[in-house]
Amino acid sequence: MSLKHLGPGSVMPPLQKGKLRLYSMVFCPYAQRARLVLAAKNIPFEVVNIKLKVKPEWYLKVNPLGQVPCLHFDDGRTLPESLLVSEYLDDTYPENKLIPTDPYKKAIQRLLIDSVTKVTGPFYKFLFGDSAAGPDILNGLDYYEQKLDNDYFGGDKPTFVDYMIWPWFERLEYLKQYKGLDLNENRHQKLFSYFERMKKVPAVKATIIPAATFDKFFKSYASEEPDYDCGIVQ
Amino acid sequence: MSLKHLGPGSVMPPLQKGKLRLYSMVFCPYAQRARLVLAAKNIPFEVVNIKLKVKPEWYLKVNPLGQVPCLHFDDGRTLPESLLVSEYLDDTYPENKLIPTDPYKKAIQRLLIDSVTKVTGPFYKFLFGDSAAGPDILNGLDYYEQKLDNDYFGGDKPTFVDYMIWPWFERLEYLKQYKGLDLNENRHQKLFSYFERMKKVPAVKATIIPAATFDKFFKSYASEEPDYDCGIVQ
Repeated sequence: MSLKHLGPGSVMPPLQKGKLRLYSMVFCPYAQRARLVLAAKNIPFEVVNIKLKVKPEWYLKVNPLGQVPCLHFDDGRTLPESLLVSEYLDDTYPENKLIPTDPYKKAIQRLLIDSVTKVTGPFYKFLFGDSAAGPDILNGLDYYEQKLDNDYFGGDKPTFVDYMIWPWFERLEYLKQYKGLDLNENRHQKLFSYFERMKKVPAVKATIIPAATFDKFFKSYASEEPDYDCGIVQ
Repeated sequence: MSLKHLGPGSVMPPLQKGKLRLYSMVFCPYAQRARLVLAAKNIPFEVVNIKLKVKPEWYLKVNPLGQVPCLHFDDGRTLPESLLVSEYLDDTYPENKLIPTDPYKKAIQRLLIDSVTKVTGPFYKFLFGDSAAGPDILNGLDYYEQKLDNDYFGGDKPTFVDYMIWPWFERLEYLKQYKGLDLNENRHQKLFSYFERMKKVPAVKATIIPAATFDKFFKSYASEEPDYDCGIVQ
């Protein structure tokens, strides 16, 4: 099956018995959360990529929210929302449990995950041209710099929290190289080492996109139909 | 120990070994989520009420977010945020499990819980004088009217989702009687029966506040120091 992003006029690829389907979009950080969990847990799945700006008519019937990620089960049930999808996958597939079983540790991880809005809020403003939001991104990173007291946010190996916040951290390199974000190692020393560690994690390697490809995509984003495939999916 | 709300100049009541403490405020719907779960699960706890508009100096050290609810354990650890507190309590105390063990049912409940912003968004606008937000509250209720397909949102008995959305439903009566919200049984027939059922649930009976008392409290809210005790806590 082609991984090319589907738009208006397309037909929903038929569901297949026993196959878990993920609706995704290659550059979407929320969908990447789900793809990171799927990769980290070695869960077999098929992906159907969606042109979010020019959606297939059938997709709004499958997921009235119109967003990705969304799971589609072979019995027709669906599940939207990145955190719900990711938690569902971790609950359902026991291999490599990512969410702590200790209720307090789980809650503290969730607090760290929900705090990513400190970064994502100014992130989108800056991405779409409001350079005054740059300092707010750095302030948001200060919070994580202060919270990082081990190799990863949940301990000495990557767990749920790392995968839930990584997609925006990954895109900082693009903001720095192509959009002039004043990100530097002196201010966020622990985070910079953490970023390097994360880039070697197999699930991250399986989903990471180079800064130059983000630049190519976001340059096309203002057009009526952005270049969702960007030469990286066929 | 007095339940009167504490403000500036107060001293933090000392933690007691083996006692779980909840910081709360009698009229706060988020804190009520935690109190509903505590009541539904018969969890022993002590409550310390906080004047949210004029906070005790010590409270910001305990919970830098400055909000309620917040749990305080006898070893000094804390946990803020109503959904995290409520989930933690359900995870930790096995009696009367409120969150579904089935991962898909759990995710669908969470989707219903997160959708309460459809009601809470316009709720606060309307409460603080923007009468144009009234129709948006009713639209938000349409969503729940449509989703209710059993005696309760999670099946034939109250579960997590019911307790997480109830606090705003409870306050609709006050908005109707004292603020002119055009709530009527013809439009929300299933919800009206549901409200009556919920009012008979023991945990709801343990925390419910009459519309007239809400009115007394919110009338005092514009002042520098609202009447948090309102004659109902001593």
